[in-house]
Amino acid sequence: MVTHPHLLAAVDLGSNSFRLIVGRVEETPAGSQIYQVDALREPVRLAAGLSRDKMLDRASQLRGWEALKRFGERLRDFHPDQVRAVATNTLRVAKNAHDFLLEAENALGFPIEVIAGREEARLIYAGAAHSVPASAGKRLVVDIGGGSTEFIIGSHYTPIHMESLYIGCVSHSRQFFPAGNVDEFTMRQAELAAKREIQIISREYKQTGWDQAIGSSGTARALAELVEANGFNDAQYTHGISRGGLERLKRALIKAENVNRLKLVALKPDRIPVLAGGLSIMLGVFEELGIDYVDTTDGALRLGVLYDLLGRSQHQDMRTVTVEGFKRRYGVDAAQADRIGDLAISFYDQLGEPDAERRQENRMFLAWAASLHEIGLSIAHSAYHKHSAYIASNADMPGFSRTDQARLAALVLGHAGKLGKLAQARDVDWTLLFCLRLAALLSRRRTDVGLPGIEVRAAAGGFEVRLPSQWVTNNPLTDYSLVQEAMEWEKIGRPYRVVYTGE
Amino acid sequence: MVTHPHLLAAVDLGSNSFRLIVGRVEETPAGSQIYQVDALREPVRLAAGLSRDKMLDRASQLRGWEALKRFGERLRDFHPDQVRAVATNTLRVAKNAHDFLLEAENALGFPIEVIAGREEARLIYAGAAHSVPASAGKRLVVDIGGGSTEFIIGSHYTPIHMESLYIGCVSHSRQFFPAGNVDEFTMRQAELAAKREIQIISREYKQTGWDQAIGSSGTARALAELVEANGFNDAQYTHGISRGGLERLKRALIKAENVNRLKLVALKPDRIPVLAGGLSIMLGVFEELGIDYVDTTDGALRLGVLYDLLGRSQHQDMRTVTVEGFKRRYGVDAAQADRIGDLAISFYDQLGEPDAERRQENRMFLAWAASLHEIGLSIAHSAYHKHSAYIASNADMPGFSRTDQARLAALVLGHAGKLGKLAQARDVDWTLLFCLRLAALLSRRRTDVGLPGIEVRAAAGGFEVRLPSQWVTNNPLTDYSLVQEAMEWEKIGRPYRVVYTGE
Repeated sequence: MVTHPHLLAAVDLGSNSFRLIVGRVEETPAGSQIYQVDALREPVRLAAGLSRDKMLDRASQLRGWEALKRFGERLRDFHPDQVRAVATNTLRVAKNAHDFLLEAENALGFPIEVIAGREEARLIYAGAAHSVPASAGKRLVVDIGGGSTEFIIGSHYTPIHMESLYIGCVSHSRQFFPAGNVDEFTMRQAELAAKREIQIISREYKQTGWDQAIGSSGTARALAELVEANGFNDAQYTHGISRGGLERLKRALIKAENVNRLKLVALKPDRIPVLAGGLSIMLGVFEELGIDYVDTTDGALRLGVLYDLLGRSQHQDMRTVTVEGFKRRYGVDAAQADRIGDLAISFYDQLGEPDAERRQENRMFLAWAASLHEIGLSIAHSAYHKHSAYIASNADMPGFSRTDQARLAALVLGHAGKLGKLAQARDVDWTLLFCLRLAALLSRRRTDVGLPGIEVRAAAGGFEVRLPSQWVTNNPLTDYSLVQEAMEWEKIGRPYRVVYTGE
Repeated sequence: MVTHPHLLAAVDLGSNSFRLIVGRVEETPAGSQIYQVDALREPVRLAAGLSRDKMLDRASQLRGWEALKRFGERLRDFHPDQVRAVATNTLRVAKNAHDFLLEAENALGFPIEVIAGREEARLIYAGAAHSVPASAGKRLVVDIGGGSTEFIIGSHYTPIHMESLYIGCVSHSRQFFPAGNVDEFTMRQAELAAKREIQIISREYKQTGWDQAIGSSGTARALAELVEANGFNDAQYTHGISRGGLERLKRALIKAENVNRLKLVALKPDRIPVLAGGLSIMLGVFEELGIDYVDTTDGALRLGVLYDLLGRSQHQDMRTVTVEGFKRRYGVDAAQADRIGDLAISFYDQLGEPDAERRQENRMFLAWAASLHEIGLSIAHSAYHKHSAYIASNADMPGFSRTDQARLAALVLGHAGKLGKLAQARDVDWTLLFCLRLAALLSRRRTDVGLPGIEVRAAAGGFEVRLPSQWVTNNPLTDYSLVQEAMEWEKIGRPYRVVYTGE
């Protein structure tokens, strides 16, 4: 692992545009700071290619792949540790996202992670907190994206509330202003629809309160530019977005009757199709949360990704913090989790993965899977491994991408019982599963029993486990379980040999 | 509700036989006591009709319906409050259980509930605790059924640990002794397979410990009769099952080479097919838990059902205790739950259900659904209603049958959002859903807002909501939400009228 990379890169596959930023890390006495040194933007408009039945059309996919190929060229000399690529709402909801991403990763040359709404919110706050001047009070950050809007209240670098709601400028524009026509009534309906969603969180957020409100997305930036350049803002504000500014922009839009006939300074052509939707959501935010003014900042998500990447390279992996929290929340038997995790890692180490990065990542996944494999007991003992997998798939897990969560869920689901159930699952790592299952099988007594030296190796598309015959004779129940385990692997066509050695 | 029924009846649709017991309730200064006054048994052998792909064959279904028809005749004068019918493992796992149960309920004349393994364990303990002499120490109750075995440790009438494991005398006999042949090796394999399951709980159970072990099922009773009548028990035991007794029975069985050739006193023909499986499980229990002797009692489940029924009729409904526990466990916003529950019940009361029993039951379900509708927030905010439904479907909920849980889960899932998702669900109670959704919609601000008088009524296959137009004008967001709600019901073909009244 590269501990102090000088350059880090973040790729953001947004619903409206794809972006790449490159940052340079500078060590200061107060900690590390990131300075942006390069940025690329490609107006892919991925969300526009999403059909009613949530399929990305071919044209939008091609635009995406082309853009990522160009990003890939810029990143050619980067090490995987220096790059993190994240995809948000459109790829969260598109049914053919998996197919798109396979090709997209090829084009970019790096893995791409689809992140959940709350994880997006966490990263946005991290980025916003690093990009606005430090202040003592609480901040509300609102990030209106193409298909979702994130709301975060935080203090300094720590988020207090994080939510992601299903309203976005692309989806709202499509629903209420499909042909670009705007009138008083439709605008009001669009505002009410936004308010209706925000209502879910408004009481809690208002109770916590904030000292400063920040709009952090392209929508906020574009609205700010429009109201600033056209002198719409209330007199006391020279920049940012005021309530009066939004109202005057709305008047102008209703007067024009259609977004395409709107004539304003600083109106960028690629914002026109999403302007009415974005404006109505911002109006809903102001009204429902009682806001008069927001400051704006751009690129919070990308900057947050860079800072998160910096944390990982400095051994402050958010994912480990999350897993520790889950162990407490779900009352996990920590001794058993550690016992299984340590044993599984010792087996994995014997298998000799040559790539050091990959080895390190896989060891972490084994430890996390061991920590989480029993969280489902909080729901019921019966079929608890399914409940553990359900929680690992669906919970908000800061630092983890959806891909990470799916990987963890597959390990947790498969740690015991039949293997056939994984036939449908994608990307099952059979090697990790082998290590985890063997460790769990040998730890069923939940005590530190003296285990003999156990050798494992990969062999002929399957696995081999070698252990002393004398010990096996003294432990018939483990022997029985190992024979059952071997049969289970044979059933899915993977040879599994149990070899008894002399002494 | 009948507060002091003199007779109560329990029907137990077991994997091996169906049974009915009738008990007479006697009030004593120390509390109510139940005395058994009648019992019927039908050797239905339902589990024997279960195919490899978990379908009940026609012949076993017919046997079941015939038996229940006879029970129904005995219960003809009983009020629904006096009868509870429960089904256990075979009907938990049979894929066509739903079809079987429709006809079965017709035959019996009362609803039949499929109960989860832990609920079965709870009821077994309640029955066993009432049927063995009171003692100061802890009791271990082991109930080897046809398809599952329940393990409970408790003290007095309170269970401490409850587990249900997937080993049973029918399934074990089928797996290890399909043709009835018994030899040393196969018997040992069957014991090890049982031990392997029990191993999961053995450490925790042994740590808690017990003063007395009780075998509570037909298997235990049959084994006790065999070892007693044939003088197999160790000399110091005049009744019950000792370790030596089991060993000598095993010797006799291995010597006979096939269960059908076994010649012993007190061997009942209908126990022969399940004897080898049941014996091997009992041997596994003795060895894994380190037991030397168990006392036996019969009919614990049925007796437990009677005592539970008695509790309900005396307003000590276990289900309410469970829901209160869940509210604490999942950190539910209790004020919001009560707000929605009270409002939903007030709407339901307006609809004028004529049947008092039904009205009372439905009011309870509305209160429970309101209490549990947000438990999924413990997993994630996003799609929390799905997580709430997942927990309500899968959690151990003492007092609730599977049917109850499915009903609750449908209400929780449907309390907000699109109704189309319920298209696949069985037995959705649209009236309760209407009340719950309207209450949730009006409570979105999570504060006690002053609501006007709202009238609801059922109309033309749908619903009508009447509220003052003046209030609606002052609450445009609620108005918008009501219009959306009406559209949602229209989409599934149920008319929903919102009427604005003067004043």
